[in-house]
Amino acid sequence: MSQALSVVILAAGQGTRMRSSLPKVLHPLADRPLLGHVLDTARALDPARLMVVHGHGGDQVQARFPEDDITWVHQPEQRGTGHAVSLALPAAGADDRILVLYGDVPLVRPETLGRLLAALDDGADLALMTTLLADPTGYGRILRDDAGRVLRIVEQKDASESERHVKEVNTGIMAAGARAFADWLSRVTDDNAQGEFYLTDCVALANGEGRRVEAAVAHDPVEVMGVNDKRQLAEQERAFQRRCAEALMREGVTVMDPARLDIRGRVNAGADVTLDVNVVLQGDVELGEGATIGAGCVIIDSRIGPGVKVLPHSVIEGAVIGADAQVGPFARIRPGTETAERARIGNFVEVKNTSVGEGAKINHLSYVGDADVGRDVNIGAGTITCNYDGANKHRTVIGDRAFIGSNTALVAPLTIGEGATIGAGTTLNRDAPPNELTVARADARTIRGWKRPEKKPKE
Amino acid sequence: MSQALSVVILAAGQGTRMRSSLPKVLHPLADRPLLGHVLDTARALDPARLMVVHGHGGDQVQARFPEDDITWVHQPEQRGTGHAVSLALPAAGADDRILVLYGDVPLVRPETLGRLLAALDDGADLALMTTLLADPTGYGRILRDDAGRVLRIVEQKDASESERHVKEVNTGIMAAGARAFADWLSRVTDDNAQGEFYLTDCVALANGEGRRVEAAVAHDPVEVMGVNDKRQLAEQERAFQRRCAEALMREGVTVMDPARLDIRGRVNAGADVTLDVNVVLQGDVELGEGATIGAGCVIIDSRIGPGVKVLPHSVIEGAVIGADAQVGPFARIRPGTETAERARIGNFVEVKNTSVGEGAKINHLSYVGDADVGRDVNIGAGTITCNYDGANKHRTVIGDRAFIGSNTALVAPLTIGEGATIGAGTTLNRDAPPNELTVARADARTIRGWKRPEKKPKE
Amino acid sequence: MSQALSVVILAAGQGTRMRSSLPKVLHPLADRPLLGHVLDTARALDPARLMVVHGHGGDQVQARFPEDDITWVHQPEQRGTGHAVSLALPAAGADDRILVLYGDVPLVRPETLGRLLAALDDGADLALMTTLLADPTGYGRILRDDAGRVLRIVEQKDASESERHVKEVNTGIMAAGARAFADWLSRVTDDNAQGEFYLTDCVALANGEGRRVEAAVAHDPVEVMGVNDKRQLAEQERAFQRRCAEALMREGVTVMDPARLDIRGRVNAGADVTLDVNVVLQGDVELGEGATIGAGCVIIDSRIGPGVKVLPHSVIEGAVIGADAQVGPFARIRPGTETAERARIGNFVEVKNTSVGEGAKINHLSYVGDADVGRDVNIGAGTITCNYDGANKHRTVIGDRAFIGSNTALVAPLTIGEGATIGAGTTLNRDAPPNELTVARADARTIRGWKRPEKKPKE
Repeated sequence: MSQALSVVILAAGQGTRMRSSLPKVLHPLADRPLLGHVLDTARALDPARLMVVHGHGGDQVQARFPEDDITWVHQPEQRGTGHAVSLALPAAGADDRILVLYGDVPLVRPETLGRLLAALDDGADLALMTTLLADPTGYGRILRDDAGRVLRIVEQKDASESERHVKEVNTGIMAAGARAFADWLSRVTDDNAQGEFYLTDCVALANGEGRRVEAAVAHDPVEVMGVNDKRQLAEQERAFQRRCAEALMREGVTVMDPARLDIRGRVNAGADVTLDVNVVLQGDVELGEGATIGAGCVIIDSRIGPGVKVLPHSVIEGAVIGADAQVGPFARIRPGTETAERARIGNFVEVKNTSVGEGAKINHLSYVGDADVGRDVNIGAGTITCNYDGANKHRTVIGDRAFIGSNTALVAPLTIGEGATIGAGTTLNRDAPPNELTVARADARTIRGWKRPEKKPKE
Repeated sequence: MSQALSVVILAAGQGTRMRSSLPKVLHPLADRPLLGHVLDTARALDPARLMVVHGHGGDQVQARFPEDDITWVHQPEQRGTGHAVSLALPAAGADDRILVLYGDVPLVRPETLGRLLAALDDGADLALMTTLLADPTGYGRILRDDAGRVLRIVEQKDASESERHVKEVNTGIMAAGARAFADWLSRVTDDNAQGEFYLTDCVALANGEGRRVEAAVAHDPVEVMGVNDKRQLAEQERAFQRRCAEALMREGVTVMDPARLDIRGRVNAGADVTLDVNVVLQGDVELGEGATIGAGCVIIDSRIGPGVKVLPHSVIEGAVIGADAQVGPFARIRPGTETAERARIGNFVEVKNTSVGEGAKINHLSYVGDADVGRDVNIGAGTITCNYDGANKHRTVIGDRAFIGSNTALVAPLTIGEGATIGAGTTLNRDAPPNELTVARADARTIRGWKRPEKKPKE
Repeated sequence: MSQALSVVILAAGQGTRMRSSLPKVLHPLADRPLLGHVLDTARALDPARLMVVHGHGGDQVQARFPEDDITWVHQPEQRGTGHAVSLALPAAGADDRILVLYGDVPLVRPETLGRLLAALDDGADLALMTTLLADPTGYGRILRDDAGRVLRIVEQKDASESERHVKEVNTGIMAAGARAFADWLSRVTDDNAQGEFYLTDCVALANGEGRRVEAAVAHDPVEVMGVNDKRQLAEQERAFQRRCAEALMREGVTVMDPARLDIRGRVNAGADVTLDVNVVLQGDVELGEGATIGAGCVIIDSRIGPGVKVLPHSVIEGAVIGADAQVGPFARIRPGTETAERARIGNFVEVKNTSVGEGAKINHLSYVGDADVGRDVNIGAGTITCNYDGANKHRTVIGDRAFIGSNTALVAPLTIGEGATIGAGTTLNRDAPPNELTVARADARTIRGWKRPEKKPKE
């Protein structure tokens, strides 16, 4: 059986090149801080202990992750990766395996780390994550012996011509026993140009002692790339989004253009879902079987039922859309909205905190807020629920099969009975009885001889 | 003179990896089923006979293509490509040339197939379509003799080290005479791991008889790639879209970003048309000279006149837009709409089944449906045609030069005379005479001493 | 000290392959003519003289650039690049350095040209811009001696097998002294297939005289690529956009997808600005610190204050948005709009030529034009300012803290006093006093026994 696992995440860097007041590890990737991604990955390994070494902007970092499975280790000064790990070691069990991750390397996969830990379990004293780069310039090259074990890491400036051709490079991610790390780190010095204690120096120390150093290769270099500036952030964002799109396609989702899909959260999609170009899905989104989401739609924290058609350029947030409903184009559905089956929400319609009954239609240019709309209700174009009196919000209740004429204003609170009809243009500020026509309307008069205004000369 | 051509399209596969209830060949590429693309290509070769071998979901496939130039051949069991072709052969003429295509290989070009058939016409007994892959791993390699003729196809597992370096691979597309295929297929066996009859085995049989086997290379591998899962479907979709964008650019269309244009149908564009980013064109779309289509617009089955400006995020379907008109941003034009020259349809405006006269303006926040709008009419913001009484649709007729004040409701059926003015806020439920002001309005009263509601404490 | 610089821009070409009536150099790249980009680059070198050789569509070209620092040289016939430069030379100083640029090569950088001119200043008699192409087929190859000096340019058709492997190619951009050019060009002949005088022939003449010919390499080939058709125009557009996105990211802007950002003008962005996917920024745009611009937004010639949130699919033009305001989704803000801090402009709202006070809200489905909206005003859904009487525009003035009920029509000119309340559904055509409720409303009546219309049979 393998030893307990302690994951140490280094997250103390300042990130000057991000040119931002936000600590680097809090910059969002797919709407979640970089560090959050690394924490997710670490947790997938089921560690006994999870330590985050924080420094720059540390309070802000800590506040953003209130989860109680994290042990926060403060590194007051930036004295190097080796120093950071040595600060964390006392919080680990003496027999733990220590895995060192980086808060700004968000895309490493649990499976890849699993291979690294497997090397340790198979007897390695130190396991390094490496990757192969087409252009390895600037990176520490991995030199292996004939058995494939790591002999040493040679830095760019020290590499011979033939060593520079080595494509395998160090990523900084590594794992070893806590005792071994403690021993090595006690001997690492800051006798270098930056005056920092480097974790990488453990490799030379381990080799010097004749310990077994092995490497696990991350086959996709994007997994081990760090984020140091906004360009790299964008590259990682795109890599992450490709990964999300491919996962959805594997599940059977039709994606019209995988390069034009943004997933910023968790998506659960049924069979035969289609996502058109430039869809953004944010938070927790559920897409029922056969749902189609049109071009340019933004859907946030919502449940879209089976067979629903969302037409282009609709924005839906915090809503539940019933089966076979149709939404959009240009619909804006806000939190607290729940539609039943076969409802229709059309163009230039805003719905908020409202239940919409089965088969009900709000097809055009309306604002329906804080309302209960019954089944098979038809709400005409230009209908406004006056739900706010300047101080309080009130509800509008519309009974089943009611017909609301166009351009009406419903001054809440009020109740419209089942089967009621409201005449076009009515401002209604009292209840309307069921099954009757209620209307407020001034008679139209023709003013004979009235002259249209004439164009005034510009002053 | 060459023999009559019979095209056999294999379309019986289940497509399990698509993870869909839809038969594989019905999955849409650019809004047309995969099989539809292959049928289009086949028809471009002007074949005497067009056969589709269907199996899985066959009724659904057949129903989707009611064209009477197709001979449907049912393959009840999936017993391999050779078996499928042998089922089709009886429907071909005995002297026909047989071209075998695949319902899930949508992007092969008629010109490329023309080269394959030319090889046959030039005396080859069997003509194979091949392509060159940078990474041919897994594909059957093409081994040629010094004269360039095909000696044999060697499968990955049987290939020697040097054979594995061959980049030319078999695509499965092939052509030969009907008699030759019948003879070879009678000798193909299902003595292999899958227990299927492979069409490819014809190559070995032909070579065994000393027949002349030639290959035509598809220079762009995307032409011969099959669709087996949603990722490949997306790749083919993108390849098809690049092809469409390049065709439009060759014709002189300015495309702001060829990677962000979707053509799902047929587009006919005049000179100096500009398509901004993220435009989607669907069905039959005609774009007049100098028309500009803004970012994010979706245009379906419509005719956009010369000089028209469609501003961003407009959705137009089933409409005719006259020369020099301006539409959008955020306009939604629905089927049956026809505007004359220089009309303007502005933001948050929905127009449906309506004729709009020359120079007429519907600039803001209106719904105009089932209407005839005369020339130089001005429709104010917030105008609604109440075209639906809950049971029937009625028309609104607005004479030339009429001026409809803002926030009016026009309760159809009604007619507004030429030059009439309708006062703002009017609900009009009768005809308005020409050249006069018609208005319905309650007088505004000031309620002295009225107190605004106060914020109630939350319960 | 170096001699004065004369830049000669060749812009006389017809550009048949653009398939357009617009002269080639007027085709827009990022909303500015190709020639404009070249002029910008030339001006960055601070030349003593700036000459443009125009021919095809010359009047149109000249009219587009009325700047008086340009000397226009007319080339009535297309007789080659050498001929074009010889026409321009008389306008240059006799001792000037001459730099030849091309009106259809828009992306060359001033820094790259600086290296070319430095070669001249360092003693070269002729300095050529070259680049390295992975596939140099068709281009003139650069042959250098051991000292790196250019021996000659060999054209594709004249190149030996080994010369064809040379990746360094001629770009046509070159610089030399005015006297040298005049001398060489007097000896260049049109004795070639096209019957044109080629500027490139100067290289052979210079070498023939034993002059020193040096080359400066443009490291990014995109800098020296010309635009001859719409496909190349799209390629240059995308290259330019990548450059813009990278510049913004270097300044610290978070760009969700650098491949989906379009900058068509000048953007000035504060720290911690975020641009979501498919944003288009046009003209002069200023983005304050911490501003976030949502997916699909189009912003033209506007100033967006710090902390502003622009939600998806908003279009803003010619506006100033105050700090911490919120706009959209689906907002359309037109020229002359200025909002104070913390204003909110919501969905399906159009605002034009209007000042919006601090904290004021126009949240839904409204048109507010030619208005002054005070601080903390609340404008209800469906409010329309009737600013146009068919002939003239009038202003609406709304005092601080006024509350405008939903679905109201404000017939301008009018003034609503501070703290006034306007009842929902009111059409207001006179001033409303401060702090009182003003309302126009017909009483709602219920018509007992009224029957809903019944569906008529289709005729």
